Amino acid sequence: MIGIRSLKLTPRNNHVICTSAFFLRLGCAEYIPNYHAQHRFSHIPNKQNINPKQTIFYAFLALGGVIGGFALYEHKYKLFRVKLDGIHIDEISSTESKEEQPNWHMNARSDLPTYNMDEVQDHCNIEKRIWVTYGIGVYDITDFIAKHPGGDNIMLGAGSAIDPFWAIYQQHNNKEILTLLEFYRIGNLSPDDTISTDDMGSPWANEPKRHPVLRPASTRPFNGEPPLKLLVQNFITPNEFFYVRNHLPVPFIEVNKYELEIAIETTKSGTKEQIKTLTLQDIKGLPKYTVTAAIMCGGNRRSEMTKVKSVKGLSWNAGAVGNATWSGARLRDLLLEMGVKPNENLHVVLEGADLDPTSHPYGASIPLSKALDERGDVILAYEMNGKTLSRDHGYPLRCIVPGNVGARNVKWLTRIAVSEAESNSHWQQSDYKGFSPSTDWDTVDFTKSPAIQAMPVTSAICSPSEGEVLKIPADGYLTIHGYAWSGGGRRIVRVDLTADQGKTWHVAKIQQEDQPDGRHYGWSLWTGRIKMETTSTGEVEIWAKAVDSAYNVQPETFENIWNLRGVLANAYHRIKIKII
Amino acid sequence: MIGIRSLKLTPRNNHVICTSAFFLRLGCAEYIPNYHAQHRFSHIPNKQNINPKQTIFYAFLALGGVIGGFALYEHKYKLFRVKLDGIHIDEISSTESKEEQPNWHMNARSDLPTYNMDEVQDHCNIEKRIWVTYGIGVYDITDFIAKHPGGDNIMLGAGSAIDPFWAIYQQHNNKEILTLLEFYRIGNLSPDDTISTDDMGSPWANEPKRHPVLRPASTRPFNGEPPLKLLVQNFITPNEFFYVRNHLPVPFIEVNKYELEIAIETTKSGTKEQIKTLTLQDIKGLPKYTVTAAIMCGGNRRSEMTKVKSVKGLSWNAGAVGNATWSGARLRDLLLEMGVKPNENLHVVLEGADLDPTSHPYGASIPLSKALDERGDVILAYEMNGKTLSRDHGYPLRCIVPGNVGARNVKWLTRIAVSEAESNSHWQQSDYKGFSPSTDWDTVDFTKSPAIQAMPVTSAICSPSEGEVLKIPADGYLTIHGYAWSGGGRRIVRVDLTADQGKTWHVAKIQQEDQPDGRHYGWSLWTGRIKMETTSTGEVEIWAKAVDSAYNVQPETFENIWNLRGVLANAYHRIKIKII
Repeated sequence: MIGIRSLKLTPRNNHVICTSAFFLRLGCAEYIPNYHAQHRFSHIPNKQNINPKQTIFYAFLALGGVIGGFALYEHKYKLFRVKLDGIHIDEISSTESKEEQPNWHMNARSDLPTYNMDEVQDHCNIEKRIWVTYGIGVYDITDFIAKHPGGDNIMLGAGSAIDPFWAIYQQHNNKEILTLLEFYRIGNLSPDDTISTDDMGSPWANEPKRHPVLRPASTRPFNGEPPLKLLVQNFITPNEFFYVRNHLPVPFIEVNKYELEIAIETTKSGTKEQIKTLTLQDIKGLPKYTVTAAIMCGGNRRSEMTKVKSVKGLSWNAGAVGNATWSGARLRDLLLEMGVKPNENLHVVLEGADLDPTSHPYGASIPLSKALDERGDVILAYEMNGKTLSRDHGYPLRCIVPGNVGARNVKWLTRIAVSEAESNSHWQQSDYKGFSPSTDWDTVDFTKSPAIQAMPVTSAICSPSEGEVLKIPADGYLTIHGYAWSGGGRRIVRVDLTADQGKTWHVAKIQQEDQPDGRHYGWSLWTGRIKMETTSTGEVEIWAKAVDSAYNVQPETFENIWNLRGVLANAYHRIKIKII
Repeated sequence: MIGIRSLKLTPRNNHVICTSAFFLRLGCAEYIPNYHAQHRFSHIPNKQNINPKQTIFYAFLALGGVIGGFALYEHKYKLFRVKLDGIHIDEISSTESKEEQPNWHMNARSDLPTYNMDEVQDHCNIEKRIWVTYGIGVYDITDFIAKHPGGDNIMLGAGSAIDPFWAIYQQHNNKEILTLLEFYRIGNLSPDDTISTDDMGSPWANEPKRHPVLRPASTRPFNGEPPLKLLVQNFITPNEFFYVRNHLPVPFIEVNKYELEIAIETTKSGTKEQIKTLTLQDIKGLPKYTVTAAIMCGGNRRSEMTKVKSVKGLSWNAGAVGNATWSGARLRDLLLEMGVKPNENLHVVLEGADLDPTSHPYGASIPLSKALDERGDVILAYEMNGKTLSRDHGYPLRCIVPGNVGARNVKWLTRIAVSEAESNSHWQQSDYKGFSPSTDWDTVDFTKSPAIQAMPVTSAICSPSEGEVLKIPADGYLTIHGYAWSGGGRRIVRVDLTADQGKTWHVAKIQQEDQPDGRHYGWSLWTGRIKMETTSTGEVEIWAKAVDSAYNVQPETFENIWNLRGVLANAYHRIKIKII
């Protein structure tokens, strides 16, 4: 692919190259919302090993015009409705399309003029209009800025090339978005201003191998889930079959250079402001705790919600969950040792080594009360099911926040901060939150909903599968398997099944650990048996609903819990099977 | 009313009278399930002032044949389905019926023989068959024993009079149950064996006065709720308008004789077994904490669930909830001072001074983890909204267990025990629990469900009222008020309203305290505005649903959460109004 423009060492370019990842604070920082983390970059080289190719690549990223914000909503559009002046694109799907992608951006259009990069760079603010390049296409995206789902992030690309961003957020590379882009085309980039990216390395070059059973919801970043029948065959999910949810390329970390920084950023924590740095050996030297905890993606079961109305997000089936034992040091012990006292208004901000194209790390936060709670069981884990963490699951260190949405279980943990504010990351502020079914992208205000922490009660039927054709055994009983889980340590107390739209409910038999309520972080597997009419054939619909220890129950339908991000998809699980 | 039989001082009678309340362990204890509390009676006289009339009354209770167990399920049948050999009574309602009650038991039947009390007493086991008396009727209830909703408790009445029990559990006194009883009639009691109960005092003689706005769901014991429109006029519910939920007669306690016993019954608590006795002054001398907490009856909104199918329990509307500030000592402080350490397997058993006819106190328990949790805010409260607790609300001391079902907030608290087992009371073991909609009284096994502790998310529309006729104001907006609450300290994060069956949802404005999640024990009041078609007239249905901080949401309908006890009735609240 031809992408990144050639570099001319104009004074401006020179400045940009030298500052590399620091571009943001020296250059266009005014375009970057919530950019308060500048100091963090100074220690990144000590903490992780970014290979030289990646370093160059990221430097190029920093140059550039970017529409990467497109993708900051979980980097995947399932269904995306845009209505523009002349174009009405009803559905833009980013699922790994096998169809031929248009390559308009690779070809010059004779009906349009040619511009050089200096001219493009001159168009980096609203007054002069916003231009970007992609391939050899030049685009005026000014009129799209306000409609960009990622908000101001699109301004990172003003006056520059978006190729490096789209190399990471590959879901842009589909027919619909390319069609949208082409609509804004105003010209061709001068041949002198193009270079090849082929030899620049790729942030995806160091991705780990995954077990082929993990069905990808996206490949870059990798997100994959196991088949449901496999998922419920083990109470403890084997590491290889544990769903993978990556927001960014997997960082490559040399463990002997790895350090974890713990910062106390406020004296309201009851102690002085301070920074402590720990090696992995230091952490392994602390008392070791093991907790069984299911981790579930906030978007698990999104594909069911999508059937009501399109949402933005990866199209997860019900497999974006797994149950494992996690071993490591207790965050509570570390914080108490540093003198931190309970304070209901403070937060613990967690950062990973996975960086977005602007060199911002993945980040999330949890309330300090959860971190300090002896029953909260928050762990800095270096082992998963007794084995060293794999790279996909956060090697060398991951924060396990039992009972909370997966997004708070930050992987490749490099920094922990006790802070007066929640994480300012996109994923804390503008992503994993719930809204009313009538809230749409025109009316949504992410400041109005709290970040998801503890998850609501849910369950899924894992066997038989949707659409499966079955013969009822001689005893007349249909056997059904699945899982159930609730956040906040709430134990599952009952799973009800029905094969007749709720006229009769059958209580499933539950397999779970004998953990106390409020600290029951593992999932429950269940088996139900429903006596069928031996003469009955044809389609049967099975519903499952779980009840947790607070007697919260799943809502019945997706219609009334639909939300624009497709999170918290915990309505009754319903499958149709065929009896022969 | 003619009721209790005369006493003949036969050797057996003499024994029974002398042992008074201790009858149970010396006499028919084998009939009494879960009777492990004998030692408790030894200190009762020191703790409360039972007036002499009541003492005599309870002594008589101990004599007697009793079918009081009829009523141990919250002492109130709303709808009760019984099918017997020749009689099919479809619906037995105990709401305070204004209709004339039959008095068959007061009249001799010439078609039946006469028995004396000795003959009745001889029939106190299954082999000889079970007889009881009521008024001057003699009944053979053997065939009803297995069908008795209260289980073995019915055997307390074997061979004796049930009048004293029914004097307390007055809901028996309705046409349907009297009809059922008359079906079992086998004779008349000899005139020599009847005495009047008129001069024996009544356990109801010391009931406090209640504010007339409290609509009684039952009068003996008193259970009453305020009108919904009144309920949401104050964020802090005035004491007089706070719903009252009594399971038994209100005890009369002289505060200068009042003592609270705190017992450590197991060394697994990390300290030695011990008993500590505190006066109210002692408790007031401890650090005083105040917590805002809503208390909600487990059966709140039961009247809505009943519309699906009959349940057993008081027919509460949505007013069995109130929001107050509670002040007192923290249970955690007391337990820590006694050396109690966290233990996930232990319980704190709470007992009140309100006694059932067998002299068992009302009892409940909570997990020790809740009692010790700094964020659990369990209070031994002597003040409600800054005023001394009223008798109806537990004077002089009530346990406040924020976030948990009302039934655990034990009133007239006399004893606290750190124990290896949950309370063995009926209300902990066989009452406030949830079941699958397909579980009925033939299949229910109360050991299979956990006692309700934290409550699920709920809400109610309090204004307008069901059926109200309204004119839409000039601005076209319909204004709706209500409350929402979730257990476990989970904050309400959203209330959605719809006037078009969920096609569009309107987010209500919420009024709540600024308390952190997990410790947000007060309720939330909300106000919604729905723009109506100004031309629209006729019936409109409004739905409300709340979402808590774990993003748990109310279930849609009562059909799929129905349970035989009618608890946990938290489906969408729906009202129909008429627009003119």
